[in-house]
Amino acid sequence: MKKGKLILFPVAIGGELLDAVLPTENKRWLETCHTFIVEEIRTARRFLKRAGYPIPIDDVAFFELNEHTSTSDIGSYLDPIADGNNVGLLSEAGLPCIADPGAAIVAIAQQRAIEVLPLVGPSSLLLALMASGLNGQSFAFNGYLPVDRSRRYAALRHLEDRVWREHQTQLFIEAPYRNNQMLEALCATLRSDTLICVACDITLPSQIIRTLPCSQWKTERLALNLHKHNTVFLIGSPQ
Amino acid sequence: MKKGKLILFPVAIGGELLDAVLPTENKRWLETCHTFIVEEIRTARRFLKRAGYPIPIDDVAFFELNEHTSTSDIGSYLDPIADGNNVGLLSEAGLPCIADPGAAIVAIAQQRAIEVLPLVGPSSLLLALMASGLNGQSFAFNGYLPVDRSRRYAALRHLEDRVWREHQTQLFIEAPYRNNQMLEALCATLRSDTLICVACDITLPSQIIRTLPCSQWKTERLALNLHKHNTVFLIGSPQ
Repeated sequence: MKKGKLILFPVAIGGELLDAVLPTENKRWLETCHTFIVEEIRTARRFLKRAGYPIPIDDVAFFELNEHTSTSDIGSYLDPIADGNNVGLLSEAGLPCIADPGAAIVAIAQQRAIEVLPLVGPSSLLLALMASGLNGQSFAFNGYLPVDRSRRYAALRHLEDRVWREHQTQLFIEAPYRNNQMLEALCATLRSDTLICVACDITLPSQIIRTLPCSQWKTERLALNLHKHNTVFLIGSPQ
Repeated sequence: MKKGKLILFPVAIGGELLDAVLPTENKRWLETCHTFIVEEIRTARRFLKRAGYPIPIDDVAFFELNEHTSTSDIGSYLDPIADGNNVGLLSEAGLPCIADPGAAIVAIAQQRAIEVLPLVGPSSLLLALMASGLNGQSFAFNGYLPVDRSRRYAALRHLEDRVWREHQTQLFIEAPYRNNQMLEALCATLRSDTLICVACDITLPSQIIRTLPCSQWKTERLALNLHKHNTVFLIGSPQ
């Protein structure tokens, strides 16, 4: 019997229309799956409904994979694949496995030589990088920086050092309710000629992607409220 | 008058169907542009034709941006935006500005406070990372590594050090005709327990994405021919 695949499904980031951010082919792959691994069942059901998924939701098996899941339990989620069925991994928003808990199940699939099929969708990180004008030949995503003031300062100086020494653009994110403080910390810490890009509400109608030298953000930031808006921060050096 | 935007259009990576990798909304944005900045006019025309772009190609202005372009010439490419017109930036394959020359024109747009709209499309880097099972909370793309044998060895040891010390997945690419030698160099250089992902022909029917410890690649690589197939290499540590 032909084995199934583990298919990685991106999900729209916010309330935007699905055909703005997802290829139509993704829907055809959705229809091949009766089993989904999801971060939260409630939001996964809502996504499937919006995507026009045609199978009655009571005929679908959902497995949760999130911070409450023991990774020793998750291997069995892939069992349908041995019987020739596809299993879908759905993210909550954006791309599965990128700043997202899905990578643990993909690692198990790789160990079992299961075919993994990643589908195209919105990545707030790469959309921000494309539109920033900063170096896209060398870049790093660093997740969340430390919250503690002195450790955060040290982390920012370390990343800025890589920006100038390696010409490597550095990306990071912050808990949305601390975004304004993060921009303030960047302004207080970085060299005046380091470029800072603030990419807020990516793919939403309210999207803002703005790159300025640190020196200009000291005043510009006062006109921008990032509080509770999903934001990617990028720092870089001129091309 | 309302100003136009600089719109960043991804392009399919290989010969795959456009609706497999591009949202339908991208086509609606294409139709708003009569001016395109492209790496090569011939392939850009072909892409527009395949995408069903409805404007007669002789009514469209193309500006080239590639390794032969002087960056002092390119600022004028954005002049239509001041008159309220959108300008499109087309990549050759995948996402504009990511491992691609487009970032120079986006940097100028940012300096002029022009709105930059990045659209969703296929990124071989992130598709490979998603399907690798390697850490997607911290990762870096390093472009091409040095070709010289001893400098390449040093670069690989440096990247492997970041893998284990920072748990940061490291991505890089190689000229397609040197891919087999690159995998051989990885096998000869890295620790036996460092994970290597080889992601070949991303989005094409021939796609292969396989993660194994270095020790296993020493034999597995003999069954895989990467010569002239676009390949992303990733190295990482277990989750």
